[in-house]
Amino acid sequence: MLGRERLQELLESVQSNKIDINNALDEILDPGYEDIGFAKIDHNRSQRRGFPEVILCQGKTTSQVVEIFKALAGKNDNILASRATPEMYRAIKAEIEEVRYNELGRVVILERKPVKQVGNILIVSAGTSDIPVVEEAAETARIMGNQVDTLNDAGVAGVHRLLNNVDLLYEAKVIVVVAGMDGALPSVVAGLVNKPVIAVPTSVGYGANLGGLAPLLTMLNSCAAGIGVVNVDNGFGAAYLASSINKIGVDD
Amino acid sequence: MLGRERLQELLESVQSNKIDINNALDEILDPGYEDIGFAKIDHNRSQRRGFPEVILCQGKTTSQVVEIFKALAGKNDNILASRATPEMYRAIKAEIEEVRYNELGRVVILERKPVKQVGNILIVSAGTSDIPVVEEAAETARIMGNQVDTLNDAGVAGVHRLLNNVDLLYEAKVIVVVAGMDGALPSVVAGLVNKPVIAVPTSVGYGANLGGLAPLLTMLNSCAAGIGVVNVDNGFGAAYLASSINKIGVDD
Amino acid sequence: MLGRERLQELLESVQSNKIDINNALDEILDPGYEDIGFAKIDHNRSQRRGFPEVILCQGKTTSQVVEIFKALAGKNDNILASRATPEMYRAIKAEIEEVRYNELGRVVILERKPVKQVGNILIVSAGTSDIPVVEEAAETARIMGNQVDTLNDAGVAGVHRLLNNVDLLYEAKVIVVVAGMDGALPSVVAGLVNKPVIAVPTSVGYGANLGGLAPLLTMLNSCAAGIGVVNVDNGFGAAYLASSINKIGVDD
Amino acid sequence: MLGRERLQELLESVQSNKIDINNALDEILDPGYEDIGFAKIDHNRSQRRGFPEVILCQGKTTSQVVEIFKALAGKNDNILASRATPEMYRAIKAEIEEVRYNELGRVVILERKPVKQVGNILIVSAGTSDIPVVEEAAETARIMGNQVDTLNDAGVAGVHRLLNNVDLLYEAKVIVVVAGMDGALPSVVAGLVNKPVIAVPTSVGYGANLGGLAPLLTMLNSCAAGIGVVNVDNGFGAAYLASSINKIGVDD
Amino acid sequence: MLGRERLQELLESVQSNKIDINNALDEILDPGYEDIGFAKIDHNRSQRRGFPEVILCQGKTTSQVVEIFKALAGKNDNILASRATPEMYRAIKAEIEEVRYNELGRVVILERKPVKQVGNILIVSAGTSDIPVVEEAAETARIMGNQVDTLNDAGVAGVHRLLNNVDLLYEAKVIVVVAGMDGALPSVVAGLVNKPVIAVPTSVGYGANLGGLAPLLTMLNSCAAGIGVVNVDNGFGAAYLASSINKIGVDD
Amino acid sequence: MLGRERLQELLESVQSNKIDINNALDEILDPGYEDIGFAKIDHNRSQRRGFPEVILCQGKTTSQVVEIFKALAGKNDNILASRATPEMYRAIKAEIEEVRYNELGRVVILERKPVKQVGNILIVSAGTSDIPVVEEAAETARIMGNQVDTLNDAGVAGVHRLLNNVDLLYEAKVIVVVAGMDGALPSVVAGLVNKPVIAVPTSVGYGANLGGLAPLLTMLNSCAAGIGVVNVDNGFGAAYLASSINKIGVDD
Amino acid sequence: MLGRERLQELLESVQSNKIDINNALDEILDPGYEDIGFAKIDHNRSQRRGFPEVILCQGKTTSQVVEIFKALAGKNDNILASRATPEMYRAIKAEIEEVRYNELGRVVILERKPVKQVGNILIVSAGTSDIPVVEEAAETARIMGNQVDTLNDAGVAGVHRLLNNVDLLYEAKVIVVVAGMDGALPSVVAGLVNKPVIAVPTSVGYGANLGGLAPLLTMLNSCAAGIGVVNVDNGFGAAYLASSINKIGVDD
Amino acid sequence: MLGRERLQELLESVQSNKIDINNALDEILDPGYEDIGFAKIDHNRSQRRGFPEVILCQGKTTSQVVEIFKALAGKNDNILASRATPEMYRAIKAEIEEVRYNELGRVVILERKPVKQVGNILIVSAGTSDIPVVEEAAETARIMGNQVDTLNDAGVAGVHRLLNNVDLLYEAKVIVVVAGMDGALPSVVAGLVNKPVIAVPTSVGYGANLGGLAPLLTMLNSCAAGIGVVNVDNGFGAAYLASSINKIGVDD
Repeated sequence: MLGRERLQELLESVQSNKIDINNALDEILDPGYEDIGFAKIDHNRSQRRGFPEVILCQGKTTSQVVEIFKALAGKNDNILASRATPEMYRAIKAEIEEVRYNELGRVVILERKPVKQVGNILIVSAGTSDIPVVEEAAETARIMGNQVDTLNDAGVAGVHRLLNNVDLLYEAKVIVVVAGMDGALPSVVAGLVNKPVIAVPTSVGYGANLGGLAPLLTMLNSCAAGIGVVNVDNGFGAAYLASSINKIGVDD
Repeated sequence: MLGRERLQELLESVQSNKIDINNALDEILDPGYEDIGFAKIDHNRSQRRGFPEVILCQGKTTSQVVEIFKALAGKNDNILASRATPEMYRAIKAEIEEVRYNELGRVVILERKPVKQVGNILIVSAGTSDIPVVEEAAETARIMGNQVDTLNDAGVAGVHRLLNNVDLLYEAKVIVVVAGMDGALPSVVAGLVNKPVIAVPTSVGYGANLGGLAPLLTMLNSCAAGIGVVNVDNGFGAAYLASSINKIGVDD
Repeated sequence: MLGRERLQELLESVQSNKIDINNALDEILDPGYEDIGFAKIDHNRSQRRGFPEVILCQGKTTSQVVEIFKALAGKNDNILASRATPEMYRAIKAEIEEVRYNELGRVVILERKPVKQVGNILIVSAGTSDIPVVEEAAETARIMGNQVDTLNDAGVAGVHRLLNNVDLLYEAKVIVVVAGMDGALPSVVAGLVNKPVIAVPTSVGYGANLGGLAPLLTMLNSCAAGIGVVNVDNGFGAAYLASSINKIGVDD
Repeated sequence: MLGRERLQELLESVQSNKIDINNALDEILDPGYEDIGFAKIDHNRSQRRGFPEVILCQGKTTSQVVEIFKALAGKNDNILASRATPEMYRAIKAEIEEVRYNELGRVVILERKPVKQVGNILIVSAGTSDIPVVEEAAETARIMGNQVDTLNDAGVAGVHRLLNNVDLLYEAKVIVVVAGMDGALPSVVAGLVNKPVIAVPTSVGYGANLGGLAPLLTMLNSCAAGIGVVNVDNGFGAAYLASSINKIGVDD
Repeated sequence: MLGRERLQELLESVQSNKIDINNALDEILDPGYEDIGFAKIDHNRSQRRGFPEVILCQGKTTSQVVEIFKALAGKNDNILASRATPEMYRAIKAEIEEVRYNELGRVVILERKPVKQVGNILIVSAGTSDIPVVEEAAETARIMGNQVDTLNDAGVAGVHRLLNNVDLLYEAKVIVVVAGMDGALPSVVAGLVNKPVIAVPTSVGYGANLGGLAPLLTMLNSCAAGIGVVNVDNGFGAAYLASSINKIGVDD
Repeated sequence: MLGRERLQELLESVQSNKIDINNALDEILDPGYEDIGFAKIDHNRSQRRGFPEVILCQGKTTSQVVEIFKALAGKNDNILASRATPEMYRAIKAEIEEVRYNELGRVVILERKPVKQVGNILIVSAGTSDIPVVEEAAETARIMGNQVDTLNDAGVAGVHRLLNNVDLLYEAKVIVVVAGMDGALPSVVAGLVNKPVIAVPTSVGYGANLGGLAPLLTMLNSCAAGIGVVNVDNGFGAAYLASSINKIGVDD
Repeated sequence: MLGRERLQELLESVQSNKIDINNALDEILDPGYEDIGFAKIDHNRSQRRGFPEVILCQGKTTSQVVEIFKALAGKNDNILASRATPEMYRAIKAEIEEVRYNELGRVVILERKPVKQVGNILIVSAGTSDIPVVEEAAETARIMGNQVDTLNDAGVAGVHRLLNNVDLLYEAKVIVVVAGMDGALPSVVAGLVNKPVIAVPTSVGYGANLGGLAPLLTMLNSCAAGIGVVNVDNGFGAAYLASSINKIGVDD
Repeated sequence: MLGRERLQELLESVQSNKIDINNALDEILDPGYEDIGFAKIDHNRSQRRGFPEVILCQGKTTSQVVEIFKALAGKNDNILASRATPEMYRAIKAEIEEVRYNELGRVVILERKPVKQVGNILIVSAGTSDIPVVEEAAETARIMGNQVDTLNDAGVAGVHRLLNNVDLLYEAKVIVVVAGMDGALPSVVAGLVNKPVIAVPTSVGYGANLGGLAPLLTMLNSCAAGIGVVNVDNGFGAAYLASSINKIGVDD
């Protein structure tokens, strides 16, 4: 979306014939994407948001994923595809040899241009079963240029496991907390530090866990202020938000 | 319900004509209650369960409550009525002068025979707003003969408020934990001690709290084992269960 | 919670008799709060988290609110009480003349020491009915030292109302988006800018709105990444989180 | 159902012996269907509603589907079967060679008499993963005689993808909007144009998406008026409704 | 939103100096609304969507409603305010004498320029208790220029009440069906005719009715195709959609 | 709805001129109701279903209730209005002196022609708080001509209260069981006897009771077969169904 | 459970030494079941409830099912096992050759003594996909001695399919109505006849159908009185209840 | 967590140089766990809570389970792993030959040091399908040193199966009640005895059972006081709580 200022410049250029009308129209109406029929690939996003469009593989066919990956790889150095099945990974790799796969985190990563990692995002998890979501978040944050630390299996059923690591909390710029079952961990973390806390409920649990809705509700109702919550198992979204916070004062 | 042993005794007494058939029938079929039309008042409960029937006032008319209270007071020294409105309290008091009212806890108590308080039930609450439920639980436990300690406003958003009082946890025989909002406190408590923990979710909160369902789900999904959960705001039920645990090895 | 470093210093002081054992114990076990029976007032929080404890009035009695307010006012210049009824406000004002009340936002504010406002938090709302939540958020953010801009009634049913104000989005450091009904606004906002977006669902709506759960779900499922969600109508929490982000690189 | 007018004609014919009583009875009680035991096939529907009964395959056995398809094909030129598995398609094709299968849209189509396509239904989708529902809708609308345009992957996370195509919106007579995840797209579309908008939530998403209930709620709570919502993934139903609107003033 | 064609004209006029750059900018960026602080009043809507913005009073303060009503009345002949309390009505009437109030339907109407009513929208209701929603829908449709017929209390528990009025169904161009409790009426109606049917669930009922969610679900799951559903009790929205359908081929 | 047989008779009468065409049409199309605008009063119901239409007052205005009551009373001896407020009762009584009011059961009854009561319906309730629903059911059943017995406060927390009354169960022809809270009573009753059991969940309870949904679910999931469930608090519906069962072999 | 009368007889026999005390005890305490460890097989049920215990296979292992089937077959002529997988059927058949399997209805039936079928239960279904539940109900009703008629695919989307068969409704003693999707059929049926109607929601549908909860809610909220509802897909339970009604006045 | 007393001792030792500062620090900060990267293994738990940490296998990979099992087995005699698949069992057995597997209960048990079993926990189940949960609970309780009795298939549909076994209830110290479907059994049990009752809902059932939520709600709403509820199918948690109650007065 052009602001009034840039629009005015354009019109002045048109008025003074410094620019062709069609070019002006193109800039005003620039779609900013490549239309490949079943998808509109957002090639401007790298500029606009600091990283190319990320491919959410879930719900797409393998061939759609490959097509989109190739289209993005044609114009970007580094690419991230989340929720990728092993089959999708193999199909992408058949086309682009350099990709690697994090099986637990289910992400495919193309990193042709090494990323400089700044700041410090800490990812804390409540239990071993939450690690797939931790991995998705960590890979996302790293490829987007953030330094990442992790503290696993620090749930509140043994609160000393967290308290013995408060230094990690004190050193982080933003903290992502991943927890299933009772989802109580973000409340304890947010009560200990004065930093942005992003909470990720996971679908770890059974019965009245309701596929992760129970910890989601816990986090939304946290008695500690300063917590932003993302969707169940959404490690990617948490990392994306953490990255936009972590880079404040850094890369803008 | 008569067991085989007592039945056999009865039949032998019948056979040997030591007991009248009608009396035997009465014991076998003993209703154990007084039928006053809109209610069956369970006069045997004091014997069977250690305390007379407790009146849950909610849903009853004031006049029904008064009638039941009077019927129970005719045969018992001490009575408890929960969820009583001030109006109900005044109506009971007009009939039975000795009753007192805990307004926050909404209970009416008749204690004509002082109760000996044994053991040690600790009631921990997460926040000031949970105190009405704490009061209901504490009054219930006391009139049933338990010694009660309380630790209020010790929620996990400031976990040092709990950790500085671990001695109270170590000294209790059974712990009742009352919490609304995120309902995270029981998980932390149960992780610190090896005792029965009874969790009471409260309807304190708003929005996605769902009238207490959110902390209820948190507690059911606790990552710490050894927690029994009761209904939302059910301070009475928690105290009743705590009492039956606290008296193990004491009054049986 | 003391870290290993500070603990070691303390022990060395004990060893060299530079500090009394009781003083050392006090620091290690410092409760950090004043216990007034029904509440533990967290006087260290101002230091620890940058602003004194905020009083959530909902669920408390008026006299409890007044007591806590007075205890905090005894040790802090500026105080915030949220979800305060007019009656609570009058009761506080009877004790502390300088407080003021934002009726729409339902907050009582004591600002004895003028706050310096830094950075830039933009609060965008979807409709006029969302303004009470906007007010709660704006007052919270301001008293915590943030500069606040607002853009009201910019919902997606007339998307030009937002697009004509994109400059406001570009200028903000962090954006709070408040929306009821369909809750669609945060997705559009987050798609336009590369900044942290905090979404607040409101209970504005009827029928299948489910008291704000519908926009809450919309926001959690946003197709735009980088959104942290808080509880329904939780303007306070959103502002608290926005403040901790806005101050990165500023006041630490 | 016969109206009073036609009934009166019939009775007059009976009275004047122009018609046999049994024939009159048959018309009054005309079942309008063929009963094949496990189904009543509605052969009058083509007349009554403009297209033969459509077979919803889900929940039926393959052999039931084949039987119904054959019964309909015996009396109609063109047939549509939705939610058909590949196995069902193969079983039908073994009997009726001319059928074709849209695998993404899961529909089997028999088009023995080419359909004239009138008007203009535009189907807009939010993301690539919504395409199966788009396909079901598009095939349904086409076989029922509507001209169909599609605009895929135009979700609100990149609202320029929609705004750069407003001409398509302006040219349509009725618009079907298909969206999963946050389901926000219909609100934006309905705010841009003054036409009937039919919203189809899809089950695309995860976690708090609740199998499509989240976008369903979003759409029902839309802040833009003029939206009719159908069941989750119900591309067929949306197309059916769009067709009945698109043909107003055309084929009646 | 300007299309490419109009933009090109504007740029050509700028190039040839036929138009001032500021005027061109104003048209491109035309906000189309009046900003009164707590609301952005959409004065272009009458042009764009055929009727001025409708005021949803629910959630607004009385003074906000009056301000918005006056702002709209300054630029439009006819105004509709829905969900208005009697108090709101009186406050508006104190300012603008000509308004009238439909108490059952809770709408305030200003009709200074008589509306020509075209086409034919039929509103069918299941029971007497659904009439408030019928009234909201009927008033909305009439002030927007549609001829409205109603058929009340025709629910499926006495299906002859509907069948004896099929002629009304046959004569309508679009049908709005209003039903609470089981919400079954739209399925029967849609099975009888080949027209667009808009279903409005109402909150009439109790217990497992869930405030109207039960009939809402019924309607979404209808076994009859061709039904678009709106939110619970949303008579306004149904009428708005019906109006946009009814006017196809009429006023465009 | 006329069957084929009666239709044939009519047509033969038309053919032989024994009946006027208009009269035949009237019988075929007999609306069977009186249309008073906001309601269609079903005067044939007394014949068709054995008792005149019952007025569900909830959701209707007082004046609507009075109008419908008067219309029914003009053609029937006995009338029942359920969910009537005291105000409605007084308004009816002002018009029809003979009516009486059951305040607990919230029903207004007109019984000008004494009803003969046959068979035996037993209504069992779990607790005192369920009595309003018992009263609604009992009044409904009696005015419809059934003999009714009641057994109150026989919930499973003291199963001897039920077991001591099994004779009542054995003597009934059909049993209505009314229970809130855990809703467990119908399972126990249905396990004891081989008779139709109708279960009525009530909204008695709190917290996770969910307004009666908890006992509703309990009853639907009963491990005892042979239970039909009605809506929460629907004493009227249970009695209506019980009556249709109780009269099998009696009044047909 | 022995009533007072039989108990008195027993005691008199004991008193007069007509019966041994152990035999008396056995009768009073008669367990009425055979305990095979993982199950208590209820051999008295045939007497008490008119048909032997029915085996719900779901949730049991195949070997448990076979053991229970054999235990029952040792003491009864006819047996019914519901929700049996083909594998379970084959395992039973390997032991008891005479059993047969209804694959659609998933029931295994042993009928060694032909059952006399009385009365008339009509089972109506809304669509072809509901037939598995119809089959479960029909087989259950037949083996329990009821004559069964069925009317399939008579849903309300083509209400003439039902109206043309009203004679079947008039002839039945009790009607079971099976419907998924909108679940509207029972309301229409119950409005046409004055007989007990038992409604069975099915899990047929998708999306907002919620696995059958949508039609379940529809049926519970029916605007037609006299409907008893059973659990989703519970054809067995519906038939069991229908049987207990159908046999009133017949086999007691 | 060290209490004040032990801390004071430590500091005095430091002051008097009886202990090295590093050792003091180690005790104060003792993590109490072994960090193996993806898990923190709590080796102190055996001391603190009386039994080593139990491994919840669900959600972990097989190799993670094996690693954790081996780490625990290195420091403890007896180990319990719950929710273990047969594949996990085989992988553990390949490393530690002595383990055994309870297939129904899905637990892997290592019992190298025979456990002394004290007290008496009674586990009652409603039906055969609940046995897997019974097994999980029984194995857990036994390995933790409790004597366990079981009473299977005693659900309320045949309440005599329970009443004939009341002696078992009378003899137990604490009772675990396992029930799916209607979940009514705990209410009946708790009404018969004055002991702690722990209720375990199971996912046994279908349709409106909601995967065990229906019996969960039943139990939370029990009309009998004194019941603590655990998560659906959580036999382990119930046994853990029962064990902590059963051992009161025994092993502390």
